[in-house]
Amino acid sequence: MTTAGSVQPRAELLVCIKCRCGQDLPADARRPGQMLFDEIASRPCPEGLTVTPVECLQNCDHGCTIALRGGDARWTYVFGRVDPEVHPDMILDGAAQYHESAEGIIPWRQRPEHFKRNCIARIPPVSMPEDA
Amino acid sequence: MTTAGSVQPRAELLVCIKCRCGQDLPADARRPGQMLFDEIASRPCPEGLTVTPVECLQNCDHGCTIALRGGDARWTYVFGRVDPEVHPDMILDGAAQYHESAEGIIPWRQRPEHFKRNCIARIPPVSMPEDA
Repeated sequence: MTTAGSVQPRAELLVCIKCRCGQDLPADARRPGQMLFDEIASRPCPEGLTVTPVECLQNCDHGCTIALRGGDARWTYVFGRVDPEVHPDMILDGAAQYHESAEGIIPWRQRPEHFKRNCIARIPPVSMPEDA
Repeated sequence: MTTAGSVQPRAELLVCIKCRCGQDLPADARRPGQMLFDEIASRPCPEGLTVTPVECLQNCDHGCTIALRGGDARWTYVFGRVDPEVHPDMILDGAAQYHESAEGIIPWRQRPEHFKRNCIARIPPVSMPEDA
């Protein structure tokens, strides 16, 4: 739906659902990553955001792990050391702020503290040359 | 240029040029990340690959850092603990293999050992819903 003013492209919150969070778990145990996804999915989703479960974001040493992306104009961020019990609200808050920004950069002073200290990596906006 | 057979979209090798590689360096010192980029840029570039310097991939604790991406159909990978002196040939080799794969997944047995052990994170191919 288009409203007045500029409409940002959708953002996507990726949640690694296979994360063991460094724990030695039985094969059939519900994983911390799945708990994290379930907690996030049980909350109201901010406008313009899609939440996507992912099998493995390969940040296994510093999980749980989420990533935020949102089209070719935004930076993609990977955040680690997420706690499935403590952080779901913070993550959705941060994801909403990310969606509001055209470049995917949340202003530092508004950025959630956890995002400031637990960025695992970021990928710049796409500026790919034309296909060969 | 289009040749016979299937043509893969271009791939992009991103190199963090600001990386200090954990060293305490004078402000005007040439950084390990810049050395890495220069070493890579001085070599022949595999077909279909673009090498792009990036200001910061924010994997500062485990640098030097590179990333590989290549359009919406491929996984994006971030690799760390790259040595500017030892690894440039391996990286270009790996980037060429990445470019050859439709999904950005280098078959495990062919994957460079360094890539196997030093993946910092990966981001799945884009499957974004339509813009709101």
